[in-house]
Amino acid sequence: MKITSYTLLTGLLFGSLLGCQNTQTTNPDVQTSQQLQQAALDSDLAYELVESLTVEVGPRLAGSDKDPIAVKWAEDKLNSLGFDKVYKEPVKVPVWERGDATATVISPYPQGLVITALGGSVATPTDGITAPIVRFETLSALKSAPEGSLNGKIAFIDHKTERHTTGKGYGKTVGGRSRGAVAAATKGALAIVIRSIGTDHDRMAHTGAMRYQDDVQRIPAAALSSPDADQLNLMLKRNSKVVLNLKMSPQSYGYTTSYNVIAEITGSSKPEEIVLTGAHLESWDEGTGALDDGAGVGIVTAAGKLIQDLPQKPARTVRIVLYAAEELGLIGGKAYAKDHKGELDKHYIAAESDFGAGLIYQIDYRVSEQAFKDVLSLSAPMSANGVAMGTNTASGGPDVSMLPKQGVPVASLRQDGRDYFDYHHTPNDTLDKVNPESLKQNVAAYAQFAYLMAQSEIDLRPIVAK
Amino acid sequence: MKITSYTLLTGLLFGSLLGCQNTQTTNPDVQTSQQLQQAALDSDLAYELVESLTVEVGPRLAGSDKDPIAVKWAEDKLNSLGFDKVYKEPVKVPVWERGDATATVISPYPQGLVITALGGSVATPTDGITAPIVRFETLSALKSAPEGSLNGKIAFIDHKTERHTTGKGYGKTVGGRSRGAVAAATKGALAIVIRSIGTDHDRMAHTGAMRYQDDVQRIPAAALSSPDADQLNLMLKRNSKVVLNLKMSPQSYGYTTSYNVIAEITGSSKPEEIVLTGAHLESWDEGTGALDDGAGVGIVTAAGKLIQDLPQKPARTVRIVLYAAEELGLIGGKAYAKDHKGELDKHYIAAESDFGAGLIYQIDYRVSEQAFKDVLSLSAPMSANGVAMGTNTASGGPDVSMLPKQGVPVASLRQDGRDYFDYHHTPNDTLDKVNPESLKQNVAAYAQFAYLMAQSEIDLRPIVAK
Repeated sequence: MKITSYTLLTGLLFGSLLGCQNTQTTNPDVQTSQQLQQAALDSDLAYELVESLTVEVGPRLAGSDKDPIAVKWAEDKLNSLGFDKVYKEPVKVPVWERGDATATVISPYPQGLVITALGGSVATPTDGITAPIVRFETLSALKSAPEGSLNGKIAFIDHKTERHTTGKGYGKTVGGRSRGAVAAATKGALAIVIRSIGTDHDRMAHTGAMRYQDDVQRIPAAALSSPDADQLNLMLKRNSKVVLNLKMSPQSYGYTTSYNVIAEITGSSKPEEIVLTGAHLESWDEGTGALDDGAGVGIVTAAGKLIQDLPQKPARTVRIVLYAAEELGLIGGKAYAKDHKGELDKHYIAAESDFGAGLIYQIDYRVSEQAFKDVLSLSAPMSANGVAMGTNTASGGPDVSMLPKQGVPVASLRQDGRDYFDYHHTPNDTLDKVNPESLKQNVAAYAQFAYLMAQSEIDLRPIVAK
Repeated sequence: MKITSYTLLTGLLFGSLLGCQNTQTTNPDVQTSQQLQQAALDSDLAYELVESLTVEVGPRLAGSDKDPIAVKWAEDKLNSLGFDKVYKEPVKVPVWERGDATATVISPYPQGLVITALGGSVATPTDGITAPIVRFETLSALKSAPEGSLNGKIAFIDHKTERHTTGKGYGKTVGGRSRGAVAAATKGALAIVIRSIGTDHDRMAHTGAMRYQDDVQRIPAAALSSPDADQLNLMLKRNSKVVLNLKMSPQSYGYTTSYNVIAEITGSSKPEEIVLTGAHLESWDEGTGALDDGAGVGIVTAAGKLIQDLPQKPARTVRIVLYAAEELGLIGGKAYAKDHKGELDKHYIAAESDFGAGLIYQIDYRVSEQAFKDVLSLSAPMSANGVAMGTNTASGGPDVSMLPKQGVPVASLRQDGRDYFDYHHTPNDTLDKVNPESLKQNVAAYAQFAYLMAQSEIDLRPIVAK
C-alpha cells in the first residue's frame, strides 16, 4: 500500500513538473517560487536536520532533561544557518515522567499485556490496582454507563481508529484518550485502559496527552497496544470476568521553563508583517520524534533557509516558530498567541507542519470570501509540486489553531497521513519512517507558500467564520 | 506487498482449484486427498487452535511456569479432538529467565536504545557494563579482528538480514546471534550487541538462542532493534567513540522437565509404520508465539483431525508431534530422535511446520533417487492447492532435521516467508499476524501430504546423500 500510493503520487508529481517546464511566465514572483521549488527538490537539508535532531538529541519530552538540549540544538542550528534573527521566548511547561507501566492478566489466562501510561496520568499504588475489566465500544458508551456501575472496576475503551489519508479516524477516537479517565472516574472506575489511538498492528502502545478535571477523582490511565486490546477481547469472549493488575509509576514535578525557538528572514519592505510557518520542537519520550515533529522542524527550517538565501528578500518577514510543549496541550502555541497578541493583526498568515513526512496533496486556506479565489490563483505554482488547490476551511495546524479566532488567516498544507497513526506517539517514531523524497516535496511546498504569501498583495481579512 | 502477493497466490490457487474440478480420477487415494483438501479449506479449526493457544496460554517459554500449562493445553486439546492415541514424553530443558535489559548511550548523545537479551545470555553486573562500542559489518569481520583488540570494549555486529520468500537471509546473519558472543569474548570483549536478525523496521529487538563455549569467557549478549542499530551507526559516523551502558538481568536456574506431546491416528494395515508431522509447542516469551509456532501447531493438528475423521483410516499411522523446547536448541527434536531410535527405520517420512502461516508454494522431498519421480507423481493432487512439485533436497524442518542422517526420508512444505522475519522472536508475534485463509491452505497441504504418504506404496529409501 505504502509503495503503491507513493509511486502513484510521485508519478503525478513528476508529471506536473514536466508540464511546468513548458509553462513560460514573466511574473517574477512566480519565477522565484519555481526556483525555490526546484532548489527544495534538490536539497537534503530537511532530512539532515531531522537526522541531526533525532540522533544528537533523540527523545525530548517537554520539561524533561532533554528539553533544554533540544532548545540549544535549535538555537545553534538556526544560527548556523544564518537567519536574520534567532531568539527564544520562555514557556511554562509541566514536568511529568513516564516511569514504568505493566499490565498483567491475573485470571483467567495469566499473562502480561503491553501498555504505556497516557501523558499526565497519575501512578497506581506500588502493588498496582487489581480489578475486573469492563469493556466499552466507545467513550460515548462509557458515558452512558449507570452511575456507580464501575465501582471497583477498570474501564476499557476498545474503539478502533480507522485509517484515512486525512487522519480523520484519529478525531473520532482520541476523545477516549483525552477525556476517558474523567468519564470512567465519574462512574466509579479505579483506572482506565484504552485501545491505543493508532492504525497499526504492532505490539506497541500509543501514548498521548490526557486530562483530569478538578472535581473528579484522578485515576491512572494507560493505553494497550492493538494486539493486546485484541487479546483482552478474546479473553472477555471466553470469560466475562477478566481480572487485571495495573502497575504504573509516572510522576509529576510541578513546572519548569521551556522555550519557543524562533528564526526570522526580515522582510524587505514590510518587515513588521509576518508570514508564520511553524512546527513543534519537543516530542514524546518513547520514540525519537522523527515524524512527530522532527519532520516539521526540518521542513519549515529548510524552507526558510531557501528564502533566507534568495538574492532578494520577500516583502514581509517570514517567521519560523519551533514551538515548545505541543504534545502537552499546545502550550507553546497558546503562549505564542498570548505573548504576541499585540502583533497578531500584523500576522498575514500562519501554517504549521505537524503531520509527519507524507506528500502534500492539497493546500487549504482560511481567508476572506473575496480573497479566496485570488489566493488560490497566487498559489497556482504549487500545483507543479503535486499540491492541489483546496478549500477555505483550513485550521492551520495545532499550534496556530487558536489564531483564526484572533482574526489571523491560516493555511493547511495537507499531507498524506494514511501511515501517520501507525507510528504516532510510539517507540516506532524513528528516523527510518521519514521518506527523504517526500520530505523534499514538503519543503518545496512550504518554501513556495511562504514566499508567495510574503510577496502577496491580496488582503486576506476578515477571514470566514468557522 | 503483502496484499499483492497474497492476492496473486490466491488467484493461482483458485485457478488451480477450478482446473481441478474438471479432472476426473478413479484413484480412491487421490479422491480422498481431494476431499481432505476441500474439507481443510472449509474449516476454521487451525485458526481456532492458534487462537486458543495464544489467548489461553500465551507466551510459553520452555522451562517457564507457562510451559506445563502449554503441555496441559496440548494434551487436553488433542484428547478432545478424539485422536486414537495421545501421550507425552519427557524432555529435559534448561530454565532461563529474561529479566530486564536496558542499553543507554552515555556519550556523545545520551539516550536509551531498545534491546533484548539473547536467549541463554548471562547477566551484566548490577550497574551494567559501560564501555565503548566497536562496530563490525559481519561475524566474519569480528572473527578477523586482532587478538585483544576488543579488550574493555562492547562488540557490535551490524549485519542486515535480507528479505526473501525462502527466508534465506536469516541463514546468512543468524551466526552473529548464535556464535557472536564466543567470537567477541575470544577477542577480549566485555559484551556483545547485535543488530536484530530480522527484516522489519520496528523498534523491537529480536531475541533467539545463543551459545557459549566451555573454554571461553561467558559475556552478556543482546540484540538491538533495527532502528536502534541505525541510530548507533549514525552516532558512530559523527563520533567514533560511542560509550554504551548495558544492563541485563537474565538468570539461569538449571534444568526441569518438559514434554513432547504426541497424538496418533492408528494406521489400518501398517500401524507400526509412521508418517510424522510436527510443530513445536513452546515459544519465546515476548510475543504470544502465534506464528512461531502456534501456526504450525494449528496446521498439523487440524490436518491430523481431518484424517482422524475419515471413514477409512490410512494404512500407516499418522503421528503428530508437538515438540518441546525447539527454540532453545531443537531439544525436543533431539530427544525424540534419541528416544525413538529403535523405530526410526519404521518412520516412512517426516515433516515439520515451523515457518509461520504463509501460503505453501512448493513441496520438496528427500527420498531415494529412484523414488523421487514417483513421489512427485503421488503428490500431484497437492498442486490443485497451489503447491508446486519441487526438489529432492528437503531438510524437513528444525525438529526433524536430525532424522535424515538416521536414514529417515523427510519433506519440506515451503511457505512464503517474506514477512516471517518481520515478527520472528519479537513481541509482535501475535495472533493478528496469522492470516486465517493461508492457514487453511497450509492445513489442506499437510492433510493431503500426510494422507498420501500414509497410503503410499513407494519405497522411499535409501535417501539421497546431502
